[in-house]
Amino acid sequence: MAQAEKITPRAKDFSEWYNDVIMQAQLADYSPVRGCMVIRPLGYRIWELMQRALDDMFKATGHQNAYFPLFIPQSFLSKEAEHVEGFAKEVAVVTHTRLKATGKTGADAVEPDPASELEEPLVVRPTSETIIYAMFAKWIQSYRDLPLLMNQWCNIVRWELRTRLFLRTTEFLWQEGHTAHATEGDAEAEARQMLGVYRKFQEEWVAMPVLTGRKTESEKFAGALRTYAVEALMQDNRALQAGTSHNLGQNFARAFNVQYQTAAGGLDFVWNTSWGVSTRMIGGLIMTHSDDNGLVAPPRLAPIQVVIVPIWKNDEEKAQVSGVSAQVKDALAKAGVRVEVDLRDMKPGAKYFDWEAKGVPLRLEVGPRDVAAGQVMAARRVKTAAGKVPLSLNDLATAAPKVLDEIQDELFQAAKARREANSIRGVHKTQFLEFMNGTGGFAYGGFCGSGDCEAQIKTETAATIRVLPDPEFQSPEQPRTCMWCGKPSVAEAVWAQAY
Amino acid sequence: MAQAEKITPRAKDFSEWYNDVIMQAQLADYSPVRGCMVIRPLGYRIWELMQRALDDMFKATGHQNAYFPLFIPQSFLSKEAEHVEGFAKEVAVVTHTRLKATGKTGADAVEPDPASELEEPLVVRPTSETIIYAMFAKWIQSYRDLPLLMNQWCNIVRWELRTRLFLRTTEFLWQEGHTAHATEGDAEAEARQMLGVYRKFQEEWVAMPVLTGRKTESEKFAGALRTYAVEALMQDNRALQAGTSHNLGQNFARAFNVQYQTAAGGLDFVWNTSWGVSTRMIGGLIMTHSDDNGLVAPPRLAPIQVVIVPIWKNDEEKAQVSGVSAQVKDALAKAGVRVEVDLRDMKPGAKYFDWEAKGVPLRLEVGPRDVAAGQVMAARRVKTAAGKVPLSLNDLATAAPKVLDEIQDELFQAAKARREANSIRGVHKTQFLEFMNGTGGFAYGGFCGSGDCEAQIKTETAATIRVLPDPEFQSPEQPRTCMWCGKPSVAEAVWAQAY
Repeated sequence: MAQAEKITPRAKDFSEWYNDVIMQAQLADYSPVRGCMVIRPLGYRIWELMQRALDDMFKATGHQNAYFPLFIPQSFLSKEAEHVEGFAKEVAVVTHTRLKATGKTGADAVEPDPASELEEPLVVRPTSETIIYAMFAKWIQSYRDLPLLMNQWCNIVRWELRTRLFLRTTEFLWQEGHTAHATEGDAEAEARQMLGVYRKFQEEWVAMPVLTGRKTESEKFAGALRTYAVEALMQDNRALQAGTSHNLGQNFARAFNVQYQTAAGGLDFVWNTSWGVSTRMIGGLIMTHSDDNGLVAPPRLAPIQVVIVPIWKNDEEKAQVSGVSAQVKDALAKAGVRVEVDLRDMKPGAKYFDWEAKGVPLRLEVGPRDVAAGQVMAARRVKTAAGKVPLSLNDLATAAPKVLDEIQDELFQAAKARREANSIRGVHKTQFLEFMNGTGGFAYGGFCGSGDCEAQIKTETAATIRVLPDPEFQSPEQPRTCMWCGKPSVAEAVWAQAY
Repeated sequence: MAQAEKITPRAKDFSEWYNDVIMQAQLADYSPVRGCMVIRPLGYRIWELMQRALDDMFKATGHQNAYFPLFIPQSFLSKEAEHVEGFAKEVAVVTHTRLKATGKTGADAVEPDPASELEEPLVVRPTSETIIYAMFAKWIQSYRDLPLLMNQWCNIVRWELRTRLFLRTTEFLWQEGHTAHATEGDAEAEARQMLGVYRKFQEEWVAMPVLTGRKTESEKFAGALRTYAVEALMQDNRALQAGTSHNLGQNFARAFNVQYQTAAGGLDFVWNTSWGVSTRMIGGLIMTHSDDNGLVAPPRLAPIQVVIVPIWKNDEEKAQVSGVSAQVKDALAKAGVRVEVDLRDMKPGAKYFDWEAKGVPLRLEVGPRDVAAGQVMAARRVKTAAGKVPLSLNDLATAAPKVLDEIQDELFQAAKARREANSIRGVHKTQFLEFMNGTGGFAYGGFCGSGDCEAQIKTETAATIRVLPDPEFQSPEQPRTCMWCGKPSVAEAVWAQAY
């Protein structure tokens, strides 16, 4: 039990639990650089699997990957007024290009060489609209060059004061899509399409149900016309924004002079979109599914989907169960399953705890009696009423993937049921205050459209409007009045305290 | 012919030719940030294909990917004396974390906020030994934790004064392997193994023959015990270092206190290795194979391996050849070929030039007469004496991959023959001077082991020792005296002028 005790229960301290899960599963670690994390192999493998799935979806929708510079001249940021306002307070600024010896020893042995000071400081990209659209201006001549559909996988730096592993770190990894279109309609369709791709990915791969919808003016991206987002509800009833898609209008096109010759022979500015998801999704995966025993990984993104634990009492038994385990591994690997055999010299119980902490969805135990009976015992990471069940060795290569599919679906359904159980609709002010001061969750209610109401609500409850939900997420009966001020409602809104 | 004329012939100006090939193929572009390039979709696709192949090789040899911070505290760099000496003069230094408005407009609208100055400046990683081994110190406790075999794909910044697309840019993409071992022998075996992986990749994927061997003291990595490298010879007879592998000894382990409990119960420092290849390899690919018509891409790394060009005179013909082209595309795609159909409204000749500039290895022309004869006309990017040859539509899905394999092999053989034709062995001083002042190439000769000789040779001829070659690349007769000073030779060396 020593292993499990290293994880603080969720009920005791959710935030401690979250860190403990990450540490015990060795997903990430703190680094000596303030606010920057190290993504360890198991965490990075989840990211690679996420990347592969998303990248296939991006390519299937006609996007091509490219790579743009890490550094952006500081003057570029100021070209779009809202954009610089939004990012100036959190950018890492490069001012020198050499270190020189000080003659001292230890930590002060070197310092930036004053002779190497840059004429114009560079910022480390907090997002790449400015540098990318500066290039688009060079590449786009006519309507024949449109749409231009690009994506970049890269690292991003935003100087955050309070950081949390995966959720908010000074440096993080993400993808940023950037596109240019001839018309507002085309840009809007693209922004909505990619929001749909994100929803599909979160639901089908992360097994994390999400709401989609539009952000209010006060929550939209700095420089955008409209921002759309996918929002999920974590087990502590706080919302997690897990992806955004922006219709940037012609704002950046005007700032960077991205013009094209229209089919009619005129000259017009292009319409841009940008959209991104980041390593933050790994935090969402953890907080959606995991439990007090550690990580629960949805099978489609689990670095190891099946672990085989041979059980033996002596060398003869070891030889036998190891042999069968190796055969099972080969058969599953051939069927496309990510599988490992655990031959360590440890007690089976200790191995179980270890693989549970690491989130492996399915464990197959192979003991001498199982082998004799032509079966293995299958234990799911998320225990079911059925407990351990025998699976025949004969058709394991079809049975195991089927179980993994079931687990994937069950995780999604459980998360969806939990979200709905923690959502209230048609909320009024008193009820809203009680809800937000109590359990929290998604509160659906009328919104007058005023930023003042949003600000007051945020001050009093720390809740913000996560989205003005898309039609399919709207309540059957649309609210008539703002749940806060009582004025006519312009749209239903979903509030929550958020990460 | 307009297209081809955009490319300066190699014989006229090799350096201009190189840039023209990149621009015409749209592999990369200059950015507004000094020394930083933009990798455009076609260039980035080559990098993705390189990554995939290498990553498979790394995983097959037991390495796991992880991700470490972009920023390194400046004091970390100084912990290893040679290391800081090697990198201090070319690092981007982050000193501030906010911009503030100046009240001015235009380029001077913002400036680094003095109130946000960091107590300890951070450098943008020029390589990650220091930050990674600081983490290794935390993770490694005992001999059971060894070997620790990691790899990172990331961006790197070295402030270069003179830059060239792909070959030397301020920011570039690479992978850096970092490992820790219990013994010097294990570390040495790892460093040599990864050098072998690089050689295999360069030869089998890039179709670029390489020499392997050890670097001299004056050319080794800053902080390493021994550096090994793979070196290729470009068409202008300059050498390109296309990958290095370092046995770092216990230098970084001592600097970052990476100790482990030995099996015997004692305490010892680990032995580290690091090894890397970068986007520079794309430059090597270009300069190894391309010609005056543009890029020549080896099939295994070609973003598009086969382009189908339908040829028509009227709508009826267009419908027919387009239909057949679509069928051919499907059949080839199913066979795993990266294939496109070019339906643009352009003359066939213009299309040919375009795809030739972009390096597509094989073009299939589909005209009405070909369709009637049940065939397509196949034209190789690198023309052969046979010229265009008919390929039967029936077995195209087996014939085309076979042609691609042949092309891959022919490119390698041609590059190897060129390298050997431009290598001289058993060289003496007079001959060496003549060679280096003339055509240049790989010069094999005796070396006394003195840094003074190396320095003199570099001053007089700009040539450096690329490697002390591994046995399989050594000349049948080993030199007895230093080709420069006449003292006894300690090893055969290979000199060249290099990128």
